[in-house]
Amino acid sequence: MRIEIICTGDEVLTGATVNTNFSHISQKLGDAGLEVRWGTTVGDDRETLLQAFRLAAERVDAVIVNGGLGPTVDDLSQEVAAQAAGVELVFSEEWFAKMAELFRRRSRMMPPSNRKQAMLPAGAELLDNPIGTACGFALDIGKARFYFTPGVPRELHRMLEDQIIPRLLARSGRQTASFLKRFHSYGIGESRADTLLAGVEALVPDGSLKLGFRAHYPQLETKLAMRGADLEDIRRKLAPVESEVRKRLGNFIVAEDDQKLEGVILDELARRQATLALVETFTGGAVAARIAPLPGAEKVFRRGVVARDPAEVCDALDLDAALAARELNLETAQVVACAARQQAGVTHALAVLIALDEGDDRMELGGTICLAIATAQEVATRRSRIVGGREWVRLGAVEMALDCLRRYLQGLPVDERIDFEKV
Amino acid sequence: MRIEIICTGDEVLTGATVNTNFSHISQKLGDAGLEVRWGTTVGDDRETLLQAFRLAAERVDAVIVNGGLGPTVDDLSQEVAAQAAGVELVFSEEWFAKMAELFRRRSRMMPPSNRKQAMLPAGAELLDNPIGTACGFALDIGKARFYFTPGVPRELHRMLEDQIIPRLLARSGRQTASFLKRFHSYGIGESRADTLLAGVEALVPDGSLKLGFRAHYPQLETKLAMRGADLEDIRRKLAPVESEVRKRLGNFIVAEDDQKLEGVILDELARRQATLALVETFTGGAVAARIAPLPGAEKVFRRGVVARDPAEVCDALDLDAALAARELNLETAQVVACAARQQAGVTHALAVLIALDEGDDRMELGGTICLAIATAQEVATRRSRIVGGREWVRLGAVEMALDCLRRYLQGLPVDERIDFEKV
Repeated sequence: MRIEIICTGDEVLTGATVNTNFSHISQKLGDAGLEVRWGTTVGDDRETLLQAFRLAAERVDAVIVNGGLGPTVDDLSQEVAAQAAGVELVFSEEWFAKMAELFRRRSRMMPPSNRKQAMLPAGAELLDNPIGTACGFALDIGKARFYFTPGVPRELHRMLEDQIIPRLLARSGRQTASFLKRFHSYGIGESRADTLLAGVEALVPDGSLKLGFRAHYPQLETKLAMRGADLEDIRRKLAPVESEVRKRLGNFIVAEDDQKLEGVILDELARRQATLALVETFTGGAVAARIAPLPGAEKVFRRGVVARDPAEVCDALDLDAALAARELNLETAQVVACAARQQAGVTHALAVLIALDEGDDRMELGGTICLAIATAQEVATRRSRIVGGREWVRLGAVEMALDCLRRYLQGLPVDERIDFEKV
Repeated sequence: MRIEIICTGDEVLTGATVNTNFSHISQKLGDAGLEVRWGTTVGDDRETLLQAFRLAAERVDAVIVNGGLGPTVDDLSQEVAAQAAGVELVFSEEWFAKMAELFRRRSRMMPPSNRKQAMLPAGAELLDNPIGTACGFALDIGKARFYFTPGVPRELHRMLEDQIIPRLLARSGRQTASFLKRFHSYGIGESRADTLLAGVEALVPDGSLKLGFRAHYPQLETKLAMRGADLEDIRRKLAPVESEVRKRLGNFIVAEDDQKLEGVILDELARRQATLALVETFTGGAVAARIAPLPGAEKVFRRGVVARDPAEVCDALDLDAALAARELNLETAQVVACAARQQAGVTHALAVLIALDEGDDRMELGGTICLAIATAQEVATRRSRIVGGREWVRLGAVEMALDCLRRYLQGLPVDERIDFEKV
C-alpha cells in the first residue's frame, strides 16, 4: 500500500513551525509496518490544496492530511476535500452535539465560528477526536482513501493511534494488531548496535518483526516493531526477542519504553530509601536539572552544588583549597564526593568534575571528565575524555554521569568502555 | 516567483530525523522576501525522485533540492538530476581538485568512493561548498531552475546564504540585498506583540520591510526582514524602524540578533566585574545550566545551590530551619538570597524558590514563584504564579528568574506584569 502524508498550513510551509507532525506520523506508520512514499507540504491556499489532493488521489492508495480542520477562515481542509471528491458539505448533527458537550464539560460557551467544524463532506466517515473540537474524517477521493487529522499534536497522536492505523492495517490486509517495544541505550553507536543485533529479526520466522534505530546523541533508541493477530499473539512472539535484545545490548540499556534514565535512577534510589547529593562543574546544573524536578525527587534528591571553579567547590564543601590547585584527577573527585556526602548527610553523592580544553570552541575541543560516586562503604570512580566541541562535551558528560550512577545502583561496572570516548 | 523545496532521504521520509532543513530553508527564503509554495519529501528511491523532479519542473520556477549528494550508493541526486534534464554525468576536474585539497588540509586519505561526488550533470553551474565534499550545483530542468544542496545542516546553511539566496533574488528581479533584524523578548505573547507593533511595516513606504514572529515559549522572536539595493540602503531604512520597535517592545526585549538572554546577563555582570551565586529549588539547576557553561562564566558565576526541599536550602546556607517550615513568601526568598551572597562572597545572588501545587501533573497545575536578587546595598523581589503543568511552570520560572536578573542589572522594573502569569 502506497501512502502519502499531506501537511497543510502557512506555519509549517513558511518554516515558522518545525514539522514534527510529519515525522511523528511517518514514524508511527513505519512502526506498524506501513511505508510512507510521499510527503507534501502546502500552505493555507485553496488552489494548491486542491492540486495536492488531486495529485495524491492519483499516485497513492491512502493519504493522511494533517491540519486545516479548525474554526477559522484559513482552515480549508473540509471544503477543499468536498470539492476534490465532488460532493457537498453537510452539517453533522452528531459532531455538533459532541462539540456542544465538550464545551459544556469545560463550562465554556461555544463561539458561533465553531459550527464550521461540524461541516463535513457528504459520505465522510467520522473519525472521533475525544479531546478537541476538530472532527477527523475519512473520504474517498479518486482512487485513494483520505484520512483528515487535526494539527494539534496531542489530538493527532490519539486519532492516528486509535482510529487511523487500525483502518490502514485492515485495508492493507496486514495482521491488524501492532506493538512497539523500545530500548534506550547509552554508550553504543547505531552501527555497533546494528552489528550486535544481527539476525534478531529472523528470530520471528513469519517476518512480522521489524528492527529499527533512532539516534539522538548521547542516547540511542532501539525499536522492535511487531505485528500479530492480537496483543496476546504479539506478546508471545516478542518475549524471546526481548530477552535476546536485553542479553546482547546488556549493560548499555538504560531504560525501556516510556522509562527515562533519570527515572530509573530515581526509582533505584527510592526503592532503597536512599538520598542523593550532586556536585557539578562544567555541566553547570544540567545533571541536577534532570533529576530534581521529577515527581518524587523531593524525597530523594537533597542537594546539589554547582560551580565552574574547583576552588569554589572546595570552599562550598569546606575542603582545603590546595586540592583545587592540583590538576584534575580521580582522587580529587573522590574527596569531593565524600565531602558532599557527609555535608549533605546523604547515602549517595555523585561528583562530576570536568577540565575543559583551553581555547575557542571547535570540533577538536575536548574535556576530561572525572566522576566519583561515594557511599558510606566505598567510592566508585570513572575517568573519561570526550571530544567534539563545548556542547558535545557538556551533553556527553551529563549522560555519562547519570549512566555511571545507574550502573553503580544496578551493580554493573561503571567504567565499561563506551563508543563516544577517546582512550 | 514560485518556489518548491524537495527534501530527499529515507531518514527524513521515515521520520527518523525531524526535517529541520526544510524549516530552515523556508524561513531563510521568507526572511529574504521569497515565498515557498510547495514542499515535497521523498526517499532514496530513483523512481519517486525522478517523478518529484519532473513534477516540480512543471509547476514552479525555482526548486531547492536538499540531500542525496553524498558518496554512497543511496545518494542519487546528481544521477536523477541528469536523467530528468536529459544530459550525461560528467567528471568535474575542478570539484575533484577541491575535494583532494580538503582531504589534504585535514591530513586524511580520500576514499575512492568520494570520486562519485565530482560527477555532475553536463552544463551544471557549480555552487561552492567550502566546508564539505558534497558539491552543490544549479541546473535547468524543464521550466525551472534547480539548486542542489547537501544534507549536512551547516553545509546547507552556508550554501543557501552565500550562493543560492543571492541567485534567487537576482532571478526574481527583487532588490538583491536582504537583512534580517531580530529582537528576542520575554513576557509578551505573539498577539500582544502584533498589536504593539501595528503600523511598523508602513514606516518603510516602499514595501521592502516584512514583520514576522516566531514564538517558542517562553520567548518570542520578532523579525524585521528588510530588502534594499545594498546593505547601506538597508541600514538607512532600517535604523528608524529598529528604534521604533525598541521603544514599543521596551523592557520586554531581552536580547537582539545572535545574543541570548543568558549572554546579556553574563556581559552585564562581567562589565561591572561582578560575581554571581544562585539558589534554585524546583528549577533544579536549570537556571545555573544556562549561565555556568558559557565561555567567560568561570570568572563570573561562582556557585549555585540546588535543592527540592527548602530545609535543605537553609541547611546548605546555615540558616535557621524554622524559616523553611513557613509557607513560601518573599521574605524567605530575601533571606535566602542574602545568605547565599554572603556565603559565596559574591556581589550578586539570585534565589528562585518555587512552591508547586500538590497532585498529579495536569494543565491546571501551577506554581508560586518567589524570586530575590541580593546585592550589598539592597534586595529586589518578585512574586508570580504560573499555571500550565509541571514542565510549563518549570520553563516559565527559569526564564522569569533570568529575566528579572537582566532587568535588575539594566535598571528596569523587575516586577512588570507579563502575559504568562496569573494575577
